[in-house]
Amino acid sequence: MSSRRDFIQKTALAAFTGAVVPNLVKAANGHLPSTAETIATGATILFQGDSITDAGRDRGQYYANNGGGMGSGYVRHIVTHLLGSMPQKNFRFYNRGISGHKVFQLAERWDDDCLQLRPDVLSLLIGVNDFWHTIDYGYKGTVEIYETDLRKLLERTKKALPQVKLIIGEPFAVAGGSAIDERWEAFAGYRPAAKKIAADFGAVFLPYQSIFDEALKLAPAEYWTPDGVHASMAGSYLMAKAWLEGWKRI
Amino acid sequence: MSSRRDFIQKTALAAFTGAVVPNLVKAANGHLPSTAETIATGATILFQGDSITDAGRDRGQYYANNGGGMGSGYVRHIVTHLLGSMPQKNFRFYNRGISGHKVFQLAERWDDDCLQLRPDVLSLLIGVNDFWHTIDYGYKGTVEIYETDLRKLLERTKKALPQVKLIIGEPFAVAGGSAIDERWEAFAGYRPAAKKIAADFGAVFLPYQSIFDEALKLAPAEYWTPDGVHASMAGSYLMAKAWLEGWKRI
Repeated sequence: MSSRRDFIQKTALAAFTGAVVPNLVKAANGHLPSTAETIATGATILFQGDSITDAGRDRGQYYANNGGGMGSGYVRHIVTHLLGSMPQKNFRFYNRGISGHKVFQLAERWDDDCLQLRPDVLSLLIGVNDFWHTIDYGYKGTVEIYETDLRKLLERTKKALPQVKLIIGEPFAVAGGSAIDERWEAFAGYRPAAKKIAADFGAVFLPYQSIFDEALKLAPAEYWTPDGVHASMAGSYLMAKAWLEGWKRI
Repeated sequence: MSSRRDFIQKTALAAFTGAVVPNLVKAANGHLPSTAETIATGATILFQGDSITDAGRDRGQYYANNGGGMGSGYVRHIVTHLLGSMPQKNFRFYNRGISGHKVFQLAERWDDDCLQLRPDVLSLLIGVNDFWHTIDYGYKGTVEIYETDLRKLLERTKKALPQVKLIIGEPFAVAGGSAIDERWEAFAGYRPAAKKIAADFGAVFLPYQSIFDEALKLAPAEYWTPDGVHASMAGSYLMAKAWLEGWKRI
C-alpha cells in the first residue's frame, strides 16, 4: 500500500500543511519581526469574533483556560496545543466569540468581553456576518461601515490597552460551500479592508481566504467548510496551523 | 522578557513535548517497525474506551468524522490533526468511548460499537473504571478479571477482523489529582496487565502513566488532569502527541 501515488500524495500534503500554510502566513507578515519568545509568562490571550470563533462554546464556562468555554473550533485546537506544549508559561486563554456577531455588536460588549479582561494578545476574526446579514437578514451595513467600525474598535482598544498585540484573521467565504452563491462576490471587498486595517495597526494578519483557496486543491469545500463559512475539524486545523505560525510574529 | 530563565524553560519544554513524549512512546514500542505510511487511504480508525475517550461526545452524532461526535478530549485533537494534515487519505474516524465503562461493558456493545464498523485501526483505552468502581461503586472486579476480559475482547476482535491494527493506551491515575488517594496504589497492577496484553497482541502501547508522571515535573496534576483520571486540554495534548507518535508504528 506504500505506493508511488501514496508517496507523491504524502509529499504534497506534507508540503501543504508543513510549508504552504506557514509560508502564506509568513508572506502576509514579512514586515513583522519573528518575536514569539517575547510573549510574557502569564500573558492573557483573548479570542474574539463570531460563530467561527464561538464554535458552540458554553458561555457559562467563562473562566480562563476552561475547556467547556473554548468551543470546538480553531480556538480549542490552538489552546490545547499551547497549554499542552508550554505549561510553564501560565498563559490565560479566553474565548469570547459570539455566533452571528458583526463589528458593531463586538463594540456593544467590548467593555465586558475585551477591555475588562485586559488581554496582552487580542485575536480577532470578524466580518463575514457584516456582509452575510446584508444579503440574508436585511442588515444595512456596507464595507465602509465595516471598515470604519473596525478601526474605531481597534482605536478604542489601543487607547485602553496601549501594549496589546493584535492578530487579525482575514474573513473568508469558500467557493463551493453550501451558503456561498454569486451574491458573495461583493464580499471580496471586506477582505482587503481587514488586511489594510491589520497593516495600519501593526497586527499579525492571517490570510485565511488564501489558505482555504489553496486547500481546495486537495479536497472540496465540503471537507474544509461545508457551508463555506464555518470550518470543519479539518478546516479548524488549517486555521490553527496558520494562527500558530502568525503567533511567532506577534 | 526574553530572559535567560525563559530560554531555559523554553528549552526544557521543547525537549519535553518535542522529545520526551515521543521518546517514551518509542521506548515502549521499539520492537515494532516504523510503518505509518502503510495505513491505507480510506482506512477506518475507531477510538474506544471510557469517559476519557468519550469526553462529552454527542452520541447522536455517530457518523464518521462528525465534529460533535468526537467529544472534546484527546480524540478530537488527534482527529482534527489528521483530517487537517492528511486530507487525501479519506480516513474515517469514529469515537465510541462511553463514560464509566469497564471492559465487560465494552464487550456487551462490541458488535455495534466495534465489529460492525470494521475498523482498520482500533485504539483502546480502558481500565481505570475496572479499578475505580471497586473502591467507589462496589464493583467486584479484580486485575485478573480485567486482564481476562480484555484478552477475550481482543481475541474476539482479531477473530472477526484479522487485519485490525491495535493501539492500546496505558490506563493511568495521576498522583495529586483530586480523586486519587492511597487506595489507588492497588491500581498499579492494572498497568502492566495492559502492557503485557499489548505486547501479546502486537499492539502499539502508549505509556500514558509515564508521560503524565514526567509532565508532573513541569506543572502539577491539576494542570494536566484535575481529578487524576480525566485529562484537561493540556493533558489531552500530551495524550494526542503520544498517540500520533505511536501511530507511526502501527
